Amino acid sequence: MGTARHNLRVDGARLWSTLMETAEFGATPAGGINRLTLSPEDGRVRDWFRAACEAAGLIVGTDELGTQFALRPGRDMTRLPIATGSHLDTQPTGGRFDGILGTLAGLEVVRTLNEAGLETEAPILLVNWTNEEGSRYAPATMASAAHVGTFATADILSRTDADGVSVAEALGRLDIVATEPTGARAIGAFVELHIEQGPILEAEEKTIGVVEGGQGILWFDGTITGFESHAGTTPMPRRRDALLGLAEVALAVERIAHAHGPSAVGTLGEAVIGAPSRNVIPGRVRFTLDIRDPRAATLDAIEGELRTTLTEIAARRSLAITLELVWRQEPVPFDPGIVALVERGAEALGLPHRRMVSGASHDACNLALRVPTAMIFVPCKDGISHNEAESATSADCTAGADLLLQTLLSLANAPRATLQG
Amino acid sequence: MGTARHNLRVDGARLWSTLMETAEFGATPAGGINRLTLSPEDGRVRDWFRAACEAAGLIVGTDELGTQFALRPGRDMTRLPIATGSHLDTQPTGGRFDGILGTLAGLEVVRTLNEAGLETEAPILLVNWTNEEGSRYAPATMASAAHVGTFATADILSRTDADGVSVAEALGRLDIVATEPTGARAIGAFVELHIEQGPILEAEEKTIGVVEGGQGILWFDGTITGFESHAGTTPMPRRRDALLGLAEVALAVERIAHAHGPSAVGTLGEAVIGAPSRNVIPGRVRFTLDIRDPRAATLDAIEGELRTTLTEIAARRSLAITLELVWRQEPVPFDPGIVALVERGAEALGLPHRRMVSGASHDACNLALRVPTAMIFVPCKDGISHNEAESATSADCTAGADLLLQTLLSLANAPRATLQG
Repeated sequence: MGTARHNLRVDGARLWSTLMETAEFGATPAGGINRLTLSPEDGRVRDWFRAACEAAGLIVGTDELGTQFALRPGRDMTRLPIATGSHLDTQPTGGRFDGILGTLAGLEVVRTLNEAGLETEAPILLVNWTNEEGSRYAPATMASAAHVGTFATADILSRTDADGVSVAEALGRLDIVATEPTGARAIGAFVELHIEQGPILEAEEKTIGVVEGGQGILWFDGTITGFESHAGTTPMPRRRDALLGLAEVALAVERIAHAHGPSAVGTLGEAVIGAPSRNVIPGRVRFTLDIRDPRAATLDAIEGELRTTLTEIAARRSLAITLELVWRQEPVPFDPGIVALVERGAEALGLPHRRMVSGASHDACNLALRVPTAMIFVPCKDGISHNEAESATSADCTAGADLLLQTLLSLANAPRATLQG
Repeated sequence: MGTARHNLRVDGARLWSTLMETAEFGATPAGGINRLTLSPEDGRVRDWFRAACEAAGLIVGTDELGTQFALRPGRDMTRLPIATGSHLDTQPTGGRFDGILGTLAGLEVVRTLNEAGLETEAPILLVNWTNEEGSRYAPATMASAAHVGTFATADILSRTDADGVSVAEALGRLDIVATEPTGARAIGAFVELHIEQGPILEAEEKTIGVVEGGQGILWFDGTITGFESHAGTTPMPRRRDALLGLAEVALAVERIAHAHGPSAVGTLGEAVIGAPSRNVIPGRVRFTLDIRDPRAATLDAIEGELRTTLTEIAARRSLAITLELVWRQEPVPFDPGIVALVERGAEALGLPHRRMVSGASHDACNLALRVPTAMIFVPCKDGISHNEAESATSADCTAGADLLLQTLLSLANAPRATLQG
């Protein structure tokens, strides 16, 4: 893989003004963005993106799920393109950087290459994946998952939002017409720049996270059933309080995740008492559980320890506890060669960096199943994301875009044998 | 106080058939009753009750809040009446015994006295208190509370239900016309028969609970504020998880109530996560807390220990925890003389009995503030109440009514000096 270094740098001010310009599509009064996938606001930013790509000389295609592919031809068009990008959709009260930075930094890289008159060996491909967020349609990252064959395109097209509008209908309302089948676009490598969405880089004063892979994820739905009874007349020893069962489950998850630290995390994000009343002992609680770790074996160990603990809690408190696995995503290791390339690039640019694992899921985690892939993280303020208060500095965005530029250049100009046999 | 015993017994079969007959007013398919206070169904049972009382020779009056007073004259009409009764309203999915047993057992006592041709010294007064349940209008036991002066009648009349209908409007819709001011009806003593609504009598195979008083109650509203963050990207040690704070609070309440046992109880009945999401660490939780004990000093001690523990939890987990007292009901001791009378009566009738404190609030708890008062409990199946599955045996209902009969006879025939100077 090439180690040639360029003095080329992106135009940080232009990147920032582009970020702020597109933040107007779906802007919220609190300074965030409400741009659900395939909404009218998403339609406007897609039109803007197509126009900006075409103005930069890129050839824009669209697949059956609306994902936009913008190609900058290379010297050797027999080579598979080196791809970058992310997503332009947001959470309903989302921020200005999640996904958007990676997409617009890719555009900035192209603009920088154009201004420098640089032609790469392999083509560069800039991608705007449809529905990374999953707020309007489940699952999240549906388009990149369909791209690599995890889901059938017809299945995803039939998914409906809360109002019963299918993905196919939503695409039709925006007059999005496919120019290629989903999955048809061949990709040689994929590098995605993203904000960390966590607090580690900021806390350690690092500018760059060299992402080694995506964590494995287990999602569970759980129920706890005890017995509803009168809060005033039921002695403490006779109670079968489902909320106290939940309390023990929550603390057990914390204890077990801690024990498998520092990477393992476990979270009860939802917990709802059935028919709650101030003077009734809760008889039913349902909850969700999210467990993550970079190693599959650790996920298995955590689940095993947790099930043992739940059995003990249920027996001691005369409760029935169920825990149903509703989703398992295996850990996704990124390509070691590209990870090392990102690391060397950060070093060469003099950017403080550390290796890390992505706690969140990204389109890159799907791509990694089929294509050599890596990610670059930059800090976000206080680790806040999926929130209108999401914030990142222009300096960090610029540093991330510069490293993306270097990485794409190295990959696109690498000797043919390095990535493609 | 009189200790004269009568061989007189109620007609258990008639009591049971009366219970089943009135259970048709608001009957639910699951075998319970939906008879919210001042609803059309409540109107029908009130009309039935008035007619049944008048058929038994009672003189029926109604106060400004709709409470029905049915008087059986005594030999000495200068003596204050000995009152009994309860309520005929139910929870929206209530049972066939809560309140209803005490009201209809009073009617059965009157019928039994009539058949025996027995005249008592003091009059007997049978009461059907409006809105004991508090399901449609807050507070619960509003009419008996207004009767003893805890609330102004005009205040209670202006209370509205979820549809904005005031108590005054609801009374008007049922054509209920007051024949006396609230609080005007003088009462010499009050004895209320009720199902236990708890599991103790059944578990100990006792037929009668000799109720020494009502517990004191503290109601709190609480909040826990941490920080919402991404479940996948926030390391365990950096979390400020409000749900884990709640878990510790719930277990602390259990531990502290246990330590003040066996009478003390503490319950978190409601707990709601703000903006819950499967992959977001809960940042805000609000909850309710219900603490009860027969002794005011214990309530104070529990609150003190709990606040100390909450401060420790908040500091250790970097959470903000608030706990606001929204209601305090002082413990209500019943009249020792009447309690002893009930106990001796149970003994004389050969009924297994134990002294206990009422965990729930009742109209008797309000009456006890101004009038010598006691209660008689009988078992209910599995301690279940406020539920369509609420159940009691005919034998236990009959035993309770027999004891009520003996107690009322003793009080109404007691030498004048015993209760009234």
